[in-house]
Amino acid sequence: MKKSVFYHAGCPVCVSSEQDIVTLIGADQVEVVHLGEDKSRIGEAEEAGVQSVPALVTPAGHVLHINFGAALEAVKG
Amino acid sequence: MKKSVFYHAGCPVCVSSEQDIVTLIGADQVEVVHLGEDKSRIGEAEEAGVQSVPALVTPAGHVLHINFGAALEAVKG
Repeated sequence: MKKSVFYHAGCPVCVSSEQDIVTLIGADQVEVVHLGEDKSRIGEAEEAGVQSVPALVTPAGHVLHINFGAALEAVKG
Repeated sequence: MKKSVFYHAGCPVCVSSEQDIVTLIGADQVEVVHLGEDKSRIGEAEEAGVQSVPALVTPAGHVLHINFGAALEAVKG
């Protein structure tokens, strides 16, 4: 099965959500991407429909925006 | 393991998120509660920290607000 992708930016809300999601879905089922450290993947996140972080893109391509850490625009800065 | 609880109110955003969460976590790991149909559980959701639906309360008691369907106040009406 294709993995989910969890995009975050290292904020406290993101880190807490990441731990919850990894626990729920399983570490081997989700790729974690830190957009603050890897800005080259911001474009990919935008194309997937991510508007804020943390967000989970499912294997089916659906975007689940989880809580609210930061708008994607703020991560670009 | 204690189950997660997914609270929703039947809105299109909720239904879509529900399908994603059930697929990701597994149907046997999550209890789905429709607060529009079962208003007696709104108090329990509030006590858990749910502010809007759809939301997932994890076995550890953390609240993940997913996307945004409706504020809990609107569900009470």
